[in-house]
Amino acid sequence: MSQERVGFVGLGNMGQAMASNLVQSGYQVTVYNRDAKKAEALVHAGATRADQPGEVARGGKIVLSMVANDEALEAVTLGENGLLESLEPGGIHLSMSTISPALAQKLTKLHAQHQSTYLASPVFGRPEAAAARQLWLAVAGEKAAKERVHAILNTLGQGIFDFGEEPYKANIVKISGNFLIASAMESLGEVFALVEKNDISRRAVIDMFSQTLFASPIYKNYGTKIAERDFNEIGFLLKLGLKDVDLVLDQAKQSQVPMPFASQLHNRFVGEIANGNGERDWMEMTRGIDRDAGLTK
Amino acid sequence: MSQERVGFVGLGNMGQAMASNLVQSGYQVTVYNRDAKKAEALVHAGATRADQPGEVARGGKIVLSMVANDEALEAVTLGENGLLESLEPGGIHLSMSTISPALAQKLTKLHAQHQSTYLASPVFGRPEAAAARQLWLAVAGEKAAKERVHAILNTLGQGIFDFGEEPYKANIVKISGNFLIASAMESLGEVFALVEKNDISRRAVIDMFSQTLFASPIYKNYGTKIAERDFNEIGFLLKLGLKDVDLVLDQAKQSQVPMPFASQLHNRFVGEIANGNGERDWMEMTRGIDRDAGLTK
Amino acid sequence: MSQERVGFVGLGNMGQAMASNLVQSGYQVTVYNRDAKKAEALVHAGATRADQPGEVARGGKIVLSMVANDEALEAVTLGENGLLESLEPGGIHLSMSTISPALAQKLTKLHAQHQSTYLASPVFGRPEAAAARQLWLAVAGEKAAKERVHAILNTLGQGIFDFGEEPYKANIVKISGNFLIASAMESLGEVFALVEKNDISRRAVIDMFSQTLFASPIYKNYGTKIAERDFNEIGFLLKLGLKDVDLVLDQAKQSQVPMPFASQLHNRFVGEIANGNGERDWMEMTRGIDRDAGLTK
Amino acid sequence: MSQERVGFVGLGNMGQAMASNLVQSGYQVTVYNRDAKKAEALVHAGATRADQPGEVARGGKIVLSMVANDEALEAVTLGENGLLESLEPGGIHLSMSTISPALAQKLTKLHAQHQSTYLASPVFGRPEAAAARQLWLAVAGEKAAKERVHAILNTLGQGIFDFGEEPYKANIVKISGNFLIASAMESLGEVFALVEKNDISRRAVIDMFSQTLFASPIYKNYGTKIAERDFNEIGFLLKLGLKDVDLVLDQAKQSQVPMPFASQLHNRFVGEIANGNGERDWMEMTRGIDRDAGLTK
Repeated sequence: MSQERVGFVGLGNMGQAMASNLVQSGYQVTVYNRDAKKAEALVHAGATRADQPGEVARGGKIVLSMVANDEALEAVTLGENGLLESLEPGGIHLSMSTISPALAQKLTKLHAQHQSTYLASPVFGRPEAAAARQLWLAVAGEKAAKERVHAILNTLGQGIFDFGEEPYKANIVKISGNFLIASAMESLGEVFALVEKNDISRRAVIDMFSQTLFASPIYKNYGTKIAERDFNEIGFLLKLGLKDVDLVLDQAKQSQVPMPFASQLHNRFVGEIANGNGERDWMEMTRGIDRDAGLTK
Repeated sequence: MSQERVGFVGLGNMGQAMASNLVQSGYQVTVYNRDAKKAEALVHAGATRADQPGEVARGGKIVLSMVANDEALEAVTLGENGLLESLEPGGIHLSMSTISPALAQKLTKLHAQHQSTYLASPVFGRPEAAAARQLWLAVAGEKAAKERVHAILNTLGQGIFDFGEEPYKANIVKISGNFLIASAMESLGEVFALVEKNDISRRAVIDMFSQTLFASPIYKNYGTKIAERDFNEIGFLLKLGLKDVDLVLDQAKQSQVPMPFASQLHNRFVGEIANGNGERDWMEMTRGIDRDAGLTK
Repeated sequence: MSQERVGFVGLGNMGQAMASNLVQSGYQVTVYNRDAKKAEALVHAGATRADQPGEVARGGKIVLSMVANDEALEAVTLGENGLLESLEPGGIHLSMSTISPALAQKLTKLHAQHQSTYLASPVFGRPEAAAARQLWLAVAGEKAAKERVHAILNTLGQGIFDFGEEPYKANIVKISGNFLIASAMESLGEVFALVEKNDISRRAVIDMFSQTLFASPIYKNYGTKIAERDFNEIGFLLKLGLKDVDLVLDQAKQSQVPMPFASQLHNRFVGEIANGNGERDWMEMTRGIDRDAGLTK
Repeated sequence: MSQERVGFVGLGNMGQAMASNLVQSGYQVTVYNRDAKKAEALVHAGATRADQPGEVARGGKIVLSMVANDEALEAVTLGENGLLESLEPGGIHLSMSTISPALAQKLTKLHAQHQSTYLASPVFGRPEAAAARQLWLAVAGEKAAKERVHAILNTLGQGIFDFGEEPYKANIVKISGNFLIASAMESLGEVFALVEKNDISRRAVIDMFSQTLFASPIYKNYGTKIAERDFNEIGFLLKLGLKDVDLVLDQAKQSQVPMPFASQLHNRFVGEIANGNGERDWMEMTRGIDRDAGLTK
């Protein structure tokens, strides 16, 4: 059981579950969150609370961050008492948030200038997967640094996939994965509208496909919920879905790749936000398909 | 081991494998194919060859058909010495081809007028799955008739999914499945172009997703082949992919359901046919994504 | 002033206006319409009423047809006492309806087999333009026949454009024109939603563009009505708009041309029909843009 | 004939023509351009050359700017010796570039804080229209300031359209106009591919439409050039076309308006840039339509 000191910044639903797992595995974890209340349970479990992002680096050399978006990561990293200036030479910033590849590139350079190392390891999985240590991790960055965080990553997830030496590449993989999920939602939503209009059970259709051709977590979990319009539990905000699709489109533009499915998803999400669903679960993007088909109920 | 007499019409790659499995399981199979040569191996294995589609119904009450499209099914069913006029009262036409829901509805009525029963049981799986009795079957039609063919379906596939009393509904499920596959191909193709332009391994990306979020046959098999542009084996013609997407769009129009992903797929397939790939495997629809991204090699 | 005998089949809003102009210009017009009541005003003005489509050909050699769609033209042309069997050798069927290029090709052949000539001359313009002899005409077919109908076309419209010897080409031009109009409607609708959301007057925007870059009848007339959501007058049914867009898509598929704008329009029209607007004016396709933007009022 | 002193920043093809017209109309014009060579002809004609953007404001109260994009306008306005700090209280910055509505909002506020006034008056027209004083101008901003620049605007263009008190609204109208032009190009390009595949003259088709339904400068000029693939003269760079479509998409996202035609145009332009045409005229976006249809020549 590790007794290594690590820092952890960002205690949203995902971050709390991840930091808690580190504590339970014996890590000496110092946590920071803008809203300090969210640190209470962790402190109770044995973590130490810091008042500034930079403090979490004290006495240790590895800091994890798990925040909502580019702005939040820039704030905790580049602000006063931020991670960048606080990390000692040789320190590692293990950045697990879903952010833009461009910001990953910028932070990689800045950390190198401070003799620390920026690693990217964005995660796939909802908060319950995080709690169950069943995240999937895409990692990229310097080889030696990746070896140093390997035990930590193993503590947090069930599988690690390595995409080389440049951190931003893991971020491209992460947003590509979210694009694939959103594409699956749109295609399932279109099928469900079609079969519903023909008096075929949406549930029977997903039961078949999720046991056969598409026997995978996404088609099974998302597919069943969308089939039954079971949207009460909010796992991932629709407006963050748009953020990620637009990160894909931005990267695709820079890379000169037309992505018509991504564009269609952009319009779908924008339409749902316009119709008041931005704060709902992103599966409700399929509401727009229903509305276009006159199925609004 | 069954010794029931059944007829079988249509000995393409799929039909041959399926008829062969019936013979091996002890059925007395009479086969018909427009091109009689394709019956030779089956006759050698114990099947009887018929010279007319209608002959396959002789002495038995169940006839299976597995042909390429609507036109072929109409020819063997409605033509002179066709299945419709040859099936005795009480007979069953078990139609397994991928055809339009509209033709299924028409044939359902005509069989009822002849006191026979039309059942739909389109299949999912490539020829190697047919040979290995690993097809997935969507079945719909009269309850009693479905019970009578149950053993046959179990002989042919690994799973049966029932979509009720109206045969055409199974056809809608079938074409919906092909649409889902094509959507997965497009979304993967877009991701592969994006990652390739960023010097990330296409293979590494599909390896991750097909072991995690999308751990399913389609993402694994199709995804890996598309990642590696391994298109030499032709499992399903691109021009037939367009046929199926257009069956979806036709049904969606009648059902008043806009399906933007299906429309995008229509344009993708049309573009590939215009660029000379209609007789290639339908995975080569992703060539158009590469071409748009300037990745043509 | 001509006193030539001509037949005229199809007395909808367009046909009545056109036949009336022929009568006023001195032609001896025999008219047929399925619903005979619509012939009353014309008979009063001097036309003769026929009880069968074929009768309109009696004593004359030129018959015009102006009906709603392929089915209607097939009925009056190929049915018993239809135009095809009634036209004498040397007769001309001047077909002005908006129909599929495929039907035009079929009728061209059939007329040739009967030693008569099929000419296509579909028209652009709403009923008020027909009444004012301000239609625009696209004509195609045999040269000699085109010369024989030239005076008639001049009586009906303000401009004639010749697209060669094969009638169906004029039909392709006609449906292309309707596609261009629908594209202009969609693009204007998107702009109007954008400016309205930014508190810019939709009317001021169309006033600028329709006096400058896009100073043309379509942008001015359609644009102003769409800007003001002035949809009470029904000039062309939305469901017929879908019919024409789909004729374009059918021809494009045969011709192996992906047309993404046409596909988007298809989905827009299907969505509006699903939302109950199929019998409204086709400008109301822009309702879908408003709905997606949360502007439904 | 005015002898008013005005400043002018930005001497690209458009700016040179506009500044020259001001000189010819008697204005005392001080010009600045990053590359001073481009000022030579104007100095020869009577203008004064400045070495810094801010210098052009000296002794006068009205400064026009006509630069390539947001970055260029920020540089000349907000940099050291920039327009913002040099304009005296009461001065007017008449900004005629095609920029983002967001930058217009930012500059409006900053000028107000400096007691000067920011007016937007983006223009429609290619360089030859600028030379011929035939630009169309969309203007927005403070009423009094608009009156003070009215004579200048009349000197530069043939028509002025007022969109109220908030400058950024004129920028939304400007980018909306470019979106309408691009939409017209795409729809014409799709039609041309369709008719070409059916052996119908592209030129004959545009001749008809540009004299009838779409008798307007854009359909006539752009349409004829696209029909004939006459792309040698580069009037507006394709990569700038993408910039403007993306300004529309950005504003649409903020305004919560899905714009599927704009998304399709985005993909078209990105695809053409990927295929090496970013520095060609933006009409060459239609190359992608040809390529998809197998018409590449």
